[in-house]
Amino acid sequence: MKKTIGLVLLLSVVLACTGAIAKEQRLYGTSALMAIVERESGSVAVIDSISHELIGKVEGLGDLKHASIVFSRDARFAYVIGRDGTLSKVDLLSLTLAAQAKAGAHSIGIAISRDNRYLMVCNYSPGGVVIFDSKDLKAIKEIPALLKDGKTLSRTVGPLDTPDNLMIFGLMEGNSVWVVDMKKEGFPVIRKFENVGDTPYDQLITPDGRYYLVGLQKSGWMGLLDTWRLDKMQRIDVRQRRIGVGEKEEVPIYHIPHLESWAITSGLAFVPAFGEKRVIVYSLKDWSIVKSIPISGTGLFVVARPGGREVWVDNVGAPGSKEERLVEIIDVDGLYVKKTIDVGTGAIDPQFTPKGEAVYISVRDENKVAVYDTDSCKLIKEIPLNKPSGIFSSDRASKFGL
Amino acid sequence: MKKTIGLVLLLSVVLACTGAIAKEQRLYGTSALMAIVERESGSVAVIDSISHELIGKVEGLGDLKHASIVFSRDARFAYVIGRDGTLSKVDLLSLTLAAQAKAGAHSIGIAISRDNRYLMVCNYSPGGVVIFDSKDLKAIKEIPALLKDGKTLSRTVGPLDTPDNLMIFGLMEGNSVWVVDMKKEGFPVIRKFENVGDTPYDQLITPDGRYYLVGLQKSGWMGLLDTWRLDKMQRIDVRQRRIGVGEKEEVPIYHIPHLESWAITSGLAFVPAFGEKRVIVYSLKDWSIVKSIPISGTGLFVVARPGGREVWVDNVGAPGSKEERLVEIIDVDGLYVKKTIDVGTGAIDPQFTPKGEAVYISVRDENKVAVYDTDSCKLIKEIPLNKPSGIFSSDRASKFGL
Repeated sequence: MKKTIGLVLLLSVVLACTGAIAKEQRLYGTSALMAIVERESGSVAVIDSISHELIGKVEGLGDLKHASIVFSRDARFAYVIGRDGTLSKVDLLSLTLAAQAKAGAHSIGIAISRDNRYLMVCNYSPGGVVIFDSKDLKAIKEIPALLKDGKTLSRTVGPLDTPDNLMIFGLMEGNSVWVVDMKKEGFPVIRKFENVGDTPYDQLITPDGRYYLVGLQKSGWMGLLDTWRLDKMQRIDVRQRRIGVGEKEEVPIYHIPHLESWAITSGLAFVPAFGEKRVIVYSLKDWSIVKSIPISGTGLFVVARPGGREVWVDNVGAPGSKEERLVEIIDVDGLYVKKTIDVGTGAIDPQFTPKGEAVYISVRDENKVAVYDTDSCKLIKEIPLNKPSGIFSSDRASKFGL
Repeated sequence: MKKTIGLVLLLSVVLACTGAIAKEQRLYGTSALMAIVERESGSVAVIDSISHELIGKVEGLGDLKHASIVFSRDARFAYVIGRDGTLSKVDLLSLTLAAQAKAGAHSIGIAISRDNRYLMVCNYSPGGVVIFDSKDLKAIKEIPALLKDGKTLSRTVGPLDTPDNLMIFGLMEGNSVWVVDMKKEGFPVIRKFENVGDTPYDQLITPDGRYYLVGLQKSGWMGLLDTWRLDKMQRIDVRQRRIGVGEKEEVPIYHIPHLESWAITSGLAFVPAFGEKRVIVYSLKDWSIVKSIPISGTGLFVVARPGGREVWVDNVGAPGSKEERLVEIIDVDGLYVKKTIDVGTGAIDPQFTPKGEAVYISVRDENKVAVYDTDSCKLIKEIPLNKPSGIFSSDRASKFGL
């Protein structure tokens, strides 16, 4: 009897080990993974962006219809925030859910602190922001984002992390931008910029980590903040960009363009116009307009290829239209569309491999991700996925504001 | 008997599994590792730069007195080139030697191609460069770097990789710079720039990936190449930088400063002078001199903190001198030394964590690496290592020219 128990024990160990060995066989570095949101099934697919092979999926991540992902510094973990406030810590090596929490009823964005210790989530409902421990997703602090009435919470957008370990977010109803110092005990709000403009809705940090930009839904300017000084929110005239809005609307706005995906390269910012089929090129020196480049539809993601020599733009348009199949490549040196690729229905969100020799594009309505060689623009591979949307390369782990 | 064999087999499996489990316990992402060369013992130490813990070491890597490291794209592997031409592929997850080869009798530098498939090694002896398969380190091609006599091989320096998947290297005796296209069958040399100046000795790619700079040991200029055009090697006057050289020598040159470690941030290049105790600041616009900043010794590594707000400089000096203990912090906004840290004897090669909240510094003659908090400049930890020298953060996996 004793011997039998011994054998059973040994067998259990062997069985347990089999799992370990299986995992060993799949050992991989984490610096070049693509985490791709499957919006309908609440799952994230993990792909090796060297071999372009699907490694696996992690499910049960809530409503991912407007999901965002940040990575732990070592890129072992992906932190996923769902539209329904589900915050998940996904282990990219074991492909399991390491922890899960509820950040709010309706969440919109996430950032990780410079030191890898904290996460901040912005909420539409109940408003305000919540700070979590990145280890176990325990909520540590809420920052209420109260309006002047002292009762109502503002919806917040962002947040973004900076090299000084600040977190910056916008208050949609508060028309304000708040700055939190993540180094200090209790995470104090160290600056409140009031009256920045009507309805902040999105933001970005320039790739050098220094400048913060906030987009405003109902004002003809953007806010620009020098994070080295934190002194004033400068107004950058973007009326040109907004010609298509409102009465002068030329084409419907199917999706408000993201700021986080503006391309900044060679001293220029490539910015999709609102409700117009063009990309506007601003000089970073004085935000004067250098050129307005016609494209096939209205751009959503405008992304610089690593090395900065090209900018790739997706096009949103009416469902079933030709333009929503197209991705366009802008030559940065010549400032013209040098190539248009017919990727497929609902092609969206070009995301480059870390050194840019390949690009991943979600083809939402064809249930696949297309991988292209960026030099030849030839299709390398199609990977079947369920309604893929946002694509996040794990080299974001070492970038500010992403 | 049969049962005994069965048990022995089971036990072997269990023992084999123990290893697997032990490895499982050490599972980690690879995006934030520090690989540190131990120059006397031919080993590389691997440190988790989030917890600042030594994970382990890999030995048997040859003569590492002037060693360099590049990473595979997923940062699973470190490729180490030793002074004696030993080329090693180190598995950063299992901490084992995955492959080893001989690249030459005396090697100097290494780069990995954009697509992760090839390595190029530059040799002092026998001269020329060799291309290897990154998978098994099989030598695929030699490029002889022949001088005009058609017989003698030039020593080569570099190489560097670019966003267009070029590799660029200098010919020390050939006074030339050659460009290899790593995308094309047979790896052709597609450009040869002759008479670039006397004795190319080091080079860099600007962080945006566009411009290549070559330093010349015996000419009063540097070569500047726009890799988008590959048309001409422009001459940048650096006589100011070289005042200390030769007859006018003010202090001995204990070590020729590296180019690869120049700090490029905020439109400025921070460059150590030759044989003079100062860092020269050039404008990237026209390479005019913006400022000359006095430091305690002669700088060797001049490194921008991520976010670009500070530049950290080590000081070389006479063995046992005060200055070789010091690391200085230059404020980029004000262009002055805002702080000097007494790190220890032979303090060298500051290397930042990917988001810059900590910095690793080798303290060669005290057999340790010191880790500092970059905001407070307080010592976080000392890690005992055997004669540490070069420190390489694995976030280099996604950077050009590093």
